[in-house]
Amino acid sequence: MASKTLSAKNAAALDKDLMSIGAFSIDQLMELAGLSVSQAVYRVHPPSRGRRVLVACGPGNNGGDGLVAARHLWHYGYKPTIYYPKQSKNELYQRLATQLRNLDVPFTDDFPSALKETDHIIDAIFGFSFSGEVREPFPAVIRALEETKLPVTSVDAPSSWNIEEGPPSSGPGAKFMPSTLVSLTAPKPLVKWFNGRHFVGGRFVSPDIKKKYNLDLPEYEGIDQIVEVGSNGEKL
Amino acid sequence: MASKTLSAKNAAALDKDLMSIGAFSIDQLMELAGLSVSQAVYRVHPPSRGRRVLVACGPGNNGGDGLVAARHLWHYGYKPTIYYPKQSKNELYQRLATQLRNLDVPFTDDFPSALKETDHIIDAIFGFSFSGEVREPFPAVIRALEETKLPVTSVDAPSSWNIEEGPPSSGPGAKFMPSTLVSLTAPKPLVKWFNGRHFVGGRFVSPDIKKKYNLDLPEYEGIDQIVEVGSNGEKL
Repeated sequence: MASKTLSAKNAAALDKDLMSIGAFSIDQLMELAGLSVSQAVYRVHPPSRGRRVLVACGPGNNGGDGLVAARHLWHYGYKPTIYYPKQSKNELYQRLATQLRNLDVPFTDDFPSALKETDHIIDAIFGFSFSGEVREPFPAVIRALEETKLPVTSVDAPSSWNIEEGPPSSGPGAKFMPSTLVSLTAPKPLVKWFNGRHFVGGRFVSPDIKKKYNLDLPEYEGIDQIVEVGSNGEKL
Repeated sequence: MASKTLSAKNAAALDKDLMSIGAFSIDQLMELAGLSVSQAVYRVHPPSRGRRVLVACGPGNNGGDGLVAARHLWHYGYKPTIYYPKQSKNELYQRLATQLRNLDVPFTDDFPSALKETDHIIDAIFGFSFSGEVREPFPAVIRALEETKLPVTSVDAPSSWNIEEGPPSSGPGAKFMPSTLVSLTAPKPLVKWFNGRHFVGGRFVSPDIKKKYNLDLPEYEGIDQIVEVGSNGEKL
């Protein structure tokens, strides 16, 4: 039987396949991933509910997806602020950050203060390659996300959660439950522990890749780059 | 007074600015340009009107936009066929073509036969950098586009048209009038001669760049990557 989820190991292998056999550049994939996230935020939190969005970006690809999403949200009329404490020297991420600076999108180092001045939060800190400990300065950020009453949209994984085993049993993230999750390409096993609104995004998977990873993915509608699914992984 | 159109020279300069000051990669821009084209096709010719789309691609960036649009259309449920007689060795275009082959999208060398087996045509042959003569093998293709009764969506410019002066006074393209035009970034002066449905796409222009080129662009709605405009350049 085909699976509705993708293990951390297979998510990494699938990503590699997209860039080798699939012939995608990381620029393309990140653009489409970030676009999916921006569409999910628009769906769950349209600008009429408040235009301020705080985007917490981690040091890797998950953070890059967040930077792309922030740019699209700016074009949709939102007012993003970026928290990006561990900026990589990676040329792509630097360009994505420049694209935001060119829109006068502010970057902040002060997460607690930024949290008081926003309507929605995007958690683009850690993705499917996360494992082990949450490193500085992110433990305090994860704790703040646990405690906030504001809606949080997590990109690919609620940050700090183990990809296969869900929330940590103690420490930062043990009680973190974002209101929305956007699984990129395919849901990861952690969705079993998630009980908010769940979307799948990343409309670029070929039938060959679906077959190779034995994936049973929901069907997208129209021109949507996201599809909402229930707790059983079926399209809503 | 701000202008609603962008000359060929300024379109080239703006493109350069997007990649230098703007910090965009061509992969990103082409992905978003092709996405805009795919959304326009979905709007004017939804799958219920026929899923077959013949995408005629030229040797440069306009052809690349067509390749990206074809991929998105495949994901929307269309059945694209690609006519791409002058395939560049450019690595990006090769990757975009591979992305289509991985979806089993057929490539054809026989434009006249393909024209008999389609419901819609995308003209992604020449864009804003076109000037002078239509080179082989495209004169016959342009003549076929002039004569067909099928709807044609042109990317950025009806191919063969002069960017500033519109349709050629004689030869291939003199009577070419596509049903739809998707102007990328901003309309070019040739829109004065165009009387079909007109969209602007490419939702990535920053206020600084708009100001530098003194552009008066229509506002996009919601998460749309396209906006329909009337013959006066105002949003419909």
